[in-house]
Amino acid sequence: MSRNDPAKTRDDYLWYTTITTRWMDNDVYGHVNNVVYYSFFDTVIAEFLRGEGGFDFETSEVIGLAVDSSCRYRRAIAFPQVVHAGLRVAHLGNSSVRYEVGIFTDDEDEASADGYFVHVFVIRETNTPTPIPPGIRAAMERMKVA
Amino acid sequence: MSRNDPAKTRDDYLWYTTITTRWMDNDVYGHVNNVVYYSFFDTVIAEFLRGEGGFDFETSEVIGLAVDSSCRYRRAIAFPQVVHAGLRVAHLGNSSVRYEVGIFTDDEDEASADGYFVHVFVIRETNTPTPIPPGIRAAMERMKVA
Amino acid sequence: MSRNDPAKTRDDYLWYTTITTRWMDNDVYGHVNNVVYYSFFDTVIAEFLRGEGGFDFETSEVIGLAVDSSCRYRRAIAFPQVVHAGLRVAHLGNSSVRYEVGIFTDDEDEASADGYFVHVFVIRETNTPTPIPPGIRAAMERMKVA
Amino acid sequence: MSRNDPAKTRDDYLWYTTITTRWMDNDVYGHVNNVVYYSFFDTVIAEFLRGEGGFDFETSEVIGLAVDSSCRYRRAIAFPQVVHAGLRVAHLGNSSVRYEVGIFTDDEDEASADGYFVHVFVIRETNTPTPIPPGIRAAMERMKVA
Repeated sequence: MSRNDPAKTRDDYLWYTTITTRWMDNDVYGHVNNVVYYSFFDTVIAEFLRGEGGFDFETSEVIGLAVDSSCRYRRAIAFPQVVHAGLRVAHLGNSSVRYEVGIFTDDEDEASADGYFVHVFVIRETNTPTPIPPGIRAAMERMKVA
Repeated sequence: MSRNDPAKTRDDYLWYTTITTRWMDNDVYGHVNNVVYYSFFDTVIAEFLRGEGGFDFETSEVIGLAVDSSCRYRRAIAFPQVVHAGLRVAHLGNSSVRYEVGIFTDDEDEASADGYFVHVFVIRETNTPTPIPPGIRAAMERMKVA
Repeated sequence: MSRNDPAKTRDDYLWYTTITTRWMDNDVYGHVNNVVYYSFFDTVIAEFLRGEGGFDFETSEVIGLAVDSSCRYRRAIAFPQVVHAGLRVAHLGNSSVRYEVGIFTDDEDEASADGYFVHVFVIRETNTPTPIPPGIRAAMERMKVA
Repeated sequence: MSRNDPAKTRDDYLWYTTITTRWMDNDVYGHVNNVVYYSFFDTVIAEFLRGEGGFDFETSEVIGLAVDSSCRYRRAIAFPQVVHAGLRVAHLGNSSVRYEVGIFTDDEDEASADGYFVHVFVIRETNTPTPIPPGIRAAMERMKVA
């Protein structure tokens, strides 16, 4: 993803969740703080893994660790706006996956922010990289873009 | 509110908003961290002041400052549950108001947590207590319980 | 603790930790948001339990669950101030403890905020209340005020 | 910054601040959540702008808006570790700056995480890009790497 790419639109993503903003998300300048967007990112990913991949983060022997993330901020969001976080899979390796995420306000087709997030799956106890479990992998395959 | 009061139920509150939980709300024990509930509290209050009282937190010369808050945690909540935050006004003074808030998961009539929050209204520039503006006060009157 | 108690002073607490504020702690009004103080509370408590009581929150079969908390906000704090969180034990039961916490800025002897936090100790697996483990209890005894 | 760059070391950065972790920073897996690192990033930047550049975020007519950020997570951090956030300036344009940040635990010379953050300076009222004010620019020049 080049840093000069145009903003993504709703069609660019394949799976969505809705996230409500909170009063404390707004910073001194009256906008949702840059940090909070990454909370939107890992929320849509966690909901996807659980809802589509059957991932149980309490008991699973294999878990996903964040190794890389990035966000391009294009237009400010402010509480009390509701946001829609869209997800797709850009690259699917043996033990790692690169998700791409777009953040949309209610009334816009262009993303307010977009970025990526890379998970490496590891054995929880040993932290050793391990293949992505089949049920999760199948869900990711369905989110792949060509 | 005695600390041994039974949990409140949905009927006890007069105004509601819906809040989505986030992956990072969960702490080491897999439940929404105790701190986060206060973010639910000030979110429902801010939405109420804005939506019902016409309060504009960017430009208003009079703002509400937190002076006191409390929460009784009754049953754990965990991401990805959605919560409903209910509000009522327990005491309405000249420049201060005591809200009571209850936090409910989708499928429960009894509050998972309940508590209170006290605002003192002040002049933004000088921090001096000042009467609650009429439009906000009228909205609060409608949320009062006997 | 009556709501009209005067602010506590540094001598009122027996154990301290230092906490740095963060840019995103400040809210629209340019002060540390009311929610964040509870993060100061549970940070000083967690550091105390670990450092003085030998509590290991990763492996311990017995954990402390928050059941009640409260904060009285007396004077605003703003990033980049550093705060000192003071702790004492006000009540020590068989399976529960009531901590009292005060938040101080670098240059003040009076608390900017003070409040309390109640833990009930439970068996992690079953959520059943259980006596406070002896090592932790001994540490709490040393923090008790008459 | 290539994604396969080796981790940075302490010598790679020119300005440091110390940040204490908080109990709620730890997520379900017992490590500081990926989102929180960006709070370390914008904290060291805000402290630098204020302390070295004389920037006053309450009153300044010109403010910095986040337009891009990224983090590479190399080794987990967990509360109650203290972190040292190092800063340098990688690119300094007319109205924009690209900072690079490294996060170090007390006992390590290699960064636990490193990344970048881009600010565009705008007129607060109109959101129009504007040259970086001279005092801030001079401070940034001192943080530049060849």
